[in-house]
Amino acid sequence: MSRRTIRIAMNGVTGRMGHRQHLVRSLLALREEGGLDLGGGRTLWPEPVLVGRREDALRSLAQQHGLDPRAVSTDLDAALADDGIEVYFDAQITSERLAALRKAVAAGKHVYAEKPTATSLDGALELARAASRAGVEHGVVQDKLFLPGLRKLARLVRGGFFGRVLSVRGEFGYWVFEGDWQSAQRPSWNYRAEDGGGIVSDMFPHWEYVLHSLFGRVTSVQAHLATHLPHRWDERGEPYRATADDAAYGIFTLEGGAVAQINSSWAVRVHRDELVEFQVDGTEGSAVAGLRGCRYQHRAGTPRPVWNPDLPAAERFRDQWQEVPDNDGDEATNGFKAQWELFLRRVADRDGTGPGGDGGDGGGDPGDGDARGQSAGPCPWDLLAGARGVQLAELARTSSEQGRRIEVPELVL
Amino acid sequence: MSRRTIRIAMNGVTGRMGHRQHLVRSLLALREEGGLDLGGGRTLWPEPVLVGRREDALRSLAQQHGLDPRAVSTDLDAALADDGIEVYFDAQITSERLAALRKAVAAGKHVYAEKPTATSLDGALELARAASRAGVEHGVVQDKLFLPGLRKLARLVRGGFFGRVLSVRGEFGYWVFEGDWQSAQRPSWNYRAEDGGGIVSDMFPHWEYVLHSLFGRVTSVQAHLATHLPHRWDERGEPYRATADDAAYGIFTLEGGAVAQINSSWAVRVHRDELVEFQVDGTEGSAVAGLRGCRYQHRAGTPRPVWNPDLPAAERFRDQWQEVPDNDGDEATNGFKAQWELFLRRVADRDGTGPGGDGGDGGGDPGDGDARGQSAGPCPWDLLAGARGVQLAELARTSSEQGRRIEVPELVL
Amino acid sequence: MSRRTIRIAMNGVTGRMGHRQHLVRSLLALREEGGLDLGGGRTLWPEPVLVGRREDALRSLAQQHGLDPRAVSTDLDAALADDGIEVYFDAQITSERLAALRKAVAAGKHVYAEKPTATSLDGALELARAASRAGVEHGVVQDKLFLPGLRKLARLVRGGFFGRVLSVRGEFGYWVFEGDWQSAQRPSWNYRAEDGGGIVSDMFPHWEYVLHSLFGRVTSVQAHLATHLPHRWDERGEPYRATADDAAYGIFTLEGGAVAQINSSWAVRVHRDELVEFQVDGTEGSAVAGLRGCRYQHRAGTPRPVWNPDLPAAERFRDQWQEVPDNDGDEATNGFKAQWELFLRRVADRDGTGPGGDGGDGGGDPGDGDARGQSAGPCPWDLLAGARGVQLAELARTSSEQGRRIEVPELVL
Amino acid sequence: MSRRTIRIAMNGVTGRMGHRQHLVRSLLALREEGGLDLGGGRTLWPEPVLVGRREDALRSLAQQHGLDPRAVSTDLDAALADDGIEVYFDAQITSERLAALRKAVAAGKHVYAEKPTATSLDGALELARAASRAGVEHGVVQDKLFLPGLRKLARLVRGGFFGRVLSVRGEFGYWVFEGDWQSAQRPSWNYRAEDGGGIVSDMFPHWEYVLHSLFGRVTSVQAHLATHLPHRWDERGEPYRATADDAAYGIFTLEGGAVAQINSSWAVRVHRDELVEFQVDGTEGSAVAGLRGCRYQHRAGTPRPVWNPDLPAAERFRDQWQEVPDNDGDEATNGFKAQWELFLRRVADRDGTGPGGDGGDGGGDPGDGDARGQSAGPCPWDLLAGARGVQLAELARTSSEQGRRIEVPELVL
Repeated sequence: MSRRTIRIAMNGVTGRMGHRQHLVRSLLALREEGGLDLGGGRTLWPEPVLVGRREDALRSLAQQHGLDPRAVSTDLDAALADDGIEVYFDAQITSERLAALRKAVAAGKHVYAEKPTATSLDGALELARAASRAGVEHGVVQDKLFLPGLRKLARLVRGGFFGRVLSVRGEFGYWVFEGDWQSAQRPSWNYRAEDGGGIVSDMFPHWEYVLHSLFGRVTSVQAHLATHLPHRWDERGEPYRATADDAAYGIFTLEGGAVAQINSSWAVRVHRDELVEFQVDGTEGSAVAGLRGCRYQHRAGTPRPVWNPDLPAAERFRDQWQEVPDNDGDEATNGFKAQWELFLRRVADRDGTGPGGDGGDGGGDPGDGDARGQSAGPCPWDLLAGARGVQLAELARTSSEQGRRIEVPELVL
Repeated sequence: MSRRTIRIAMNGVTGRMGHRQHLVRSLLALREEGGLDLGGGRTLWPEPVLVGRREDALRSLAQQHGLDPRAVSTDLDAALADDGIEVYFDAQITSERLAALRKAVAAGKHVYAEKPTATSLDGALELARAASRAGVEHGVVQDKLFLPGLRKLARLVRGGFFGRVLSVRGEFGYWVFEGDWQSAQRPSWNYRAEDGGGIVSDMFPHWEYVLHSLFGRVTSVQAHLATHLPHRWDERGEPYRATADDAAYGIFTLEGGAVAQINSSWAVRVHRDELVEFQVDGTEGSAVAGLRGCRYQHRAGTPRPVWNPDLPAAERFRDQWQEVPDNDGDEATNGFKAQWELFLRRVADRDGTGPGGDGGDGGGDPGDGDARGQSAGPCPWDLLAGARGVQLAELARTSSEQGRRIEVPELVL
Repeated sequence: MSRRTIRIAMNGVTGRMGHRQHLVRSLLALREEGGLDLGGGRTLWPEPVLVGRREDALRSLAQQHGLDPRAVSTDLDAALADDGIEVYFDAQITSERLAALRKAVAAGKHVYAEKPTATSLDGALELARAASRAGVEHGVVQDKLFLPGLRKLARLVRGGFFGRVLSVRGEFGYWVFEGDWQSAQRPSWNYRAEDGGGIVSDMFPHWEYVLHSLFGRVTSVQAHLATHLPHRWDERGEPYRATADDAAYGIFTLEGGAVAQINSSWAVRVHRDELVEFQVDGTEGSAVAGLRGCRYQHRAGTPRPVWNPDLPAAERFRDQWQEVPDNDGDEATNGFKAQWELFLRRVADRDGTGPGGDGGDGGGDPGDGDARGQSAGPCPWDLLAGARGVQLAELARTSSEQGRRIEVPELVL
Repeated sequence: MSRRTIRIAMNGVTGRMGHRQHLVRSLLALREEGGLDLGGGRTLWPEPVLVGRREDALRSLAQQHGLDPRAVSTDLDAALADDGIEVYFDAQITSERLAALRKAVAAGKHVYAEKPTATSLDGALELARAASRAGVEHGVVQDKLFLPGLRKLARLVRGGFFGRVLSVRGEFGYWVFEGDWQSAQRPSWNYRAEDGGGIVSDMFPHWEYVLHSLFGRVTSVQAHLATHLPHRWDERGEPYRATADDAAYGIFTLEGGAVAQINSSWAVRVHRDELVEFQVDGTEGSAVAGLRGCRYQHRAGTPRPVWNPDLPAAERFRDQWQEVPDNDGDEATNGFKAQWELFLRRVADRDGTGPGGDGGDGGGDPGDGDARGQSAGPCPWDLLAGARGVQLAELARTSSEQGRRIEVPELVL
């Protein structure tokens, strides 16, 4: 039994996602399990170093979670200069991310980051290239792929359930209160274009990797953006003008010929089982997946409705779908932690080989990576993937402005 | 009590829709009720004259329904020359419709027709203008507006329930079998472009009048058409190449600023309560309407979900909607018959004034016309409305071919 | 419109099956519908001539059903000599059938018969050959194939639902009371070998055509016959010795490699949804079909149970199956009538061509024959098929006696 | 109160069954209850000595469960030479078992073992004879008999519920994933004949003791083995050729005349309430038992279905069965622990008499042994019983190869 410690500079863990998902439910959870089992009697022990601006807040966080209170830093450059730190993780606000990641890559750290990796494609792509040249491991969070519903959906795809996939339809959204009579449940900067807000920036990177991983690369986009609610009230109850898009209606074509149509909106009321749902229709069968559940209907069980306005719907169409069973412990998996494990395994796999990974787009499959305890393989959710998400959001905005369908060029390093 | 007889030449009633919906469930149903009550002790008694090509079939149909077996005709010109016939109705196949309607208008008949009224906008518009010039009554079937679900939805619109309407999302479709291992439930010509097939031609005229009547005129269209299943088997089990669109993904802007997004497909499996559903979101509330049902959620009852991938959806979102009650006997109404009644009332209202109506596009509301027994008012579902449906389908095809958003010019007589 | 009358000598219609299924629910039902629609304005009008021993019973039956009371006969030879009679149908007790069918074939009649067609393979095969030589149409009842549950199962097979079929398991049976404290619900001769009784003779012909039509020819049989209840009481309450098999445990191999295991028993209590059920397991999915229903589970919805005797079954396995929808009006079909229609169509198709059919084993498919109104095509349920059923029963008995697996040679004319 | 300690060498407890069922849920559970109550104020205190190859793993296991970390051994011979150890238990992989048991018997230990006791009948029988000659207690695990469902079934047998048992039908199985798109839930060696795999080796020993204990000795076997899925993927995702049987269709005759038909398969989807179910039909009543539940139908409640294909099944046959109540605390019993208690009681009963039991095959009934607190009596699940299980699997394979029914000779010491 040998235990190797890996020190990870975590920047931005005082925010909700950084704290809750990445620190507590990922790295600290790994420590509670005794570290990450690498097989062959080896264990990886993550040692977070909290980086940020407010030293008090960091110290208190460290103490609260039983970390060494001295292992905090308000000096990013110093942390990156520390040779004992191997990994840099970034969950800062978007506008700060690119500069910090650039520095970390320049310092030879392996980097892992929240999305989007940059506010423009140019920046995101340049960063991916820099990391590739530096030969460090790099990864971007793609948590949706690790959620139970999408894991089940991925299993159906892998198993050939759909035959040829014809179309994917997605509905995402819920009602974000305007902030007057009920406070808004999202921050006001999300609704200001000048602050990097907008639902396209927020969600299209997700749609890119979901579509790409499951069905094929996005080859064209047509989008119609809207600001349905131009007047909102901020965290202090002050009215402000919402300048960013709060809804986007998108049509995508995918490599392989399928069509994807996805609506994203913070101005809809939810008449669905989950906040996001994808319906996939193929020649052999269809499925509807949310974050948790996934139901399927094979063509053998497809009804034969006849359009007859005279009669009420005689069939209970929803009852003709069957739940996909939780065969791989999908529902017990924490997506953020699962992706952290894959990333750390990749770093550990380099032991004895030195830096110099491939950065290529391989077949690493979130659906069974942890289930079989396999080594991680080439990382499909690296900084190049992160750049693709930024690209799709950018082209969607252009499409909406110009009122035309736009081809999506394939990114290369 | 005075009873006035009105003779109606019905062309195309040997087909399913013409026979079942227009003859049996509309005009014959009116006769079973003793005719159409015009108020003031006056009754209108419709007397169908069946026009077509196969004399035997017409005679047999007449006999079967207790009509005068001599009141059939295989000579359209002769029928139109008969001064005793006041109304011409057309339910022929689309390619025959325009020529026949032109003749009827020229002969001074009031005309009522199935949609689409022509295969091109030019023809449809020219016909509308001719009818207007001739001063005859004219109408085009818009049956969806008279269905219970959409009547309830219209009532919500009229009552100001939605506040400002932000968006309309529609899903229409079901799986039409390919025809190999299970026979197809639609005719094969629907899937051949060369025979006038395609889901856009079939459904976009419906979407035009639904959107227009309920929310505002369609001002732009972006559409992506697809032929998801290029191989099908026809009525005789022979394989054929499907050349027409079997799915269309559309984004529309509406007068007043709302966005409509509607998917139409014969290659989806139904995970909905009804074969077509529209969700309308407004500042004050939302509703989801199908053909029969209509559910609403007011902003007072809107939940406040927080996007938390850690947890299964804690709320049963569907249960937070409430059924709109059947307050106007909506569910007992036959849409086709209701529209026939409105049309015949208009014709009857001209008694004593002679031909020469206004043909203008007023606010007559299909949702309550008969329920309140009001006089019919200017007809919003006239030949100009019919031309708008043809126009939208035509522009949608162009939009898809050219990959751009297309403005929809307002049609005028 | 032309109507052709076809006279059919029906022998054995005073018995339950002959009367109820063949006369009343098939031929008389056709007459109530105005005859069999042959397409092209032609109709076939069946005119039964009742043949039997008890003239009074026949006359009364004719009168009861509005048939010409003179159209009955107690002289089979005379009926067969009547040139106006084209078809001979036989539903007599088994021991009488072969001789009568031989005569009918010799007289040039088309023949249709209940199964088994003979008590020995030799007789059954010789009869099939004679009919083939004579060029008459011939058919044997295979009613199970036309039942809703098996029609749905056949649709799954045709649609490729199962992938490669691995195994078929069948359970048939129910408790036939011994006759002492509750009277038996089957005739006593069924339990006497010397009277042609036995469950193998009764049911194995059914299993032969079900397996053969759906999955492939039976290539070997292993059977274990038992007489579980050797003492029974007959119709008059008298005890008798049951000498025939009342249960049979069979294992079959099928062309294509699947294994079929079918238990048949009159000494079991029913813990199933239907009196007979077949479970089919394939690489891609499984189904369980009874006479009426059919449920499926695709591999995408296959659970992953772990054998853990510590815990109660956590999953409700039955709920993981989905009903196959009634897409082809399967449930409204009467199997006997559907097969009569196919047979009569074949006879009618010969008009103008004279006798001389092929007797080959073609692709006529009970699952959609009537749904598409196709012409009947080569008949797969002819006297050669009847002989295969007799063969399988015979070889099963031999297998049980000798305690060994027996190859089933393919029969040829 | 006197407490006697009994030291038990446990070999193979690092495996799942050995660890979980035998160590934790049996012997440690007994310690938690204060030891096994022998009556008369005497208590037996089991003291496990863990034997195996990996000293670290054994030490860690001992520590984890609060056992003396020094009480582990990697030297089987030394452990068997230790006079302080009275019992040897074996849960190693099958191929190692026989040699170890032979040594233990030669060393005069009482022996208790998992099944199968050997890979061939010769070895298993020779071992049984050696143990008998040595006069030691010996036992083989027959856990199924101690499960709630089979305990209830045994109670029905003992109570004479069935009258004369006519037939037993069993279905065992579930879908073991191939390992490509979903990992397999059983180890790959199970599917390789060369590694001792195959469902017959695994399950037929169970069927032998279940049938034998409940209904009578198996006197003949006919089996058909199949390898339905010849291609599988192993623990590392590598494809391999499955050479062992993954399904077996068996027909057995039993002493007393009943017929048993049992299907075992790892290539079926479960349309049952439990993973294994037995239906027993007798002259007076029937029952269906799984691992947990057991339902019965007495002849007084047997319906009288008539085979009528015209009508849907009018009766809900499953609802006509009644659950056997949990009168003996069956559902709370752990089968493995219950059998351990019986075995330890037998060993304790020898105190004061010295070795030299009879080894005969008496009527000790697992269903009520502990429930009634009786002394254990002659053990029906001894090494001779273990040899019978090996014999049945061996003859089943021969039967399948030779295509014939094979008599099962009665084994004697």
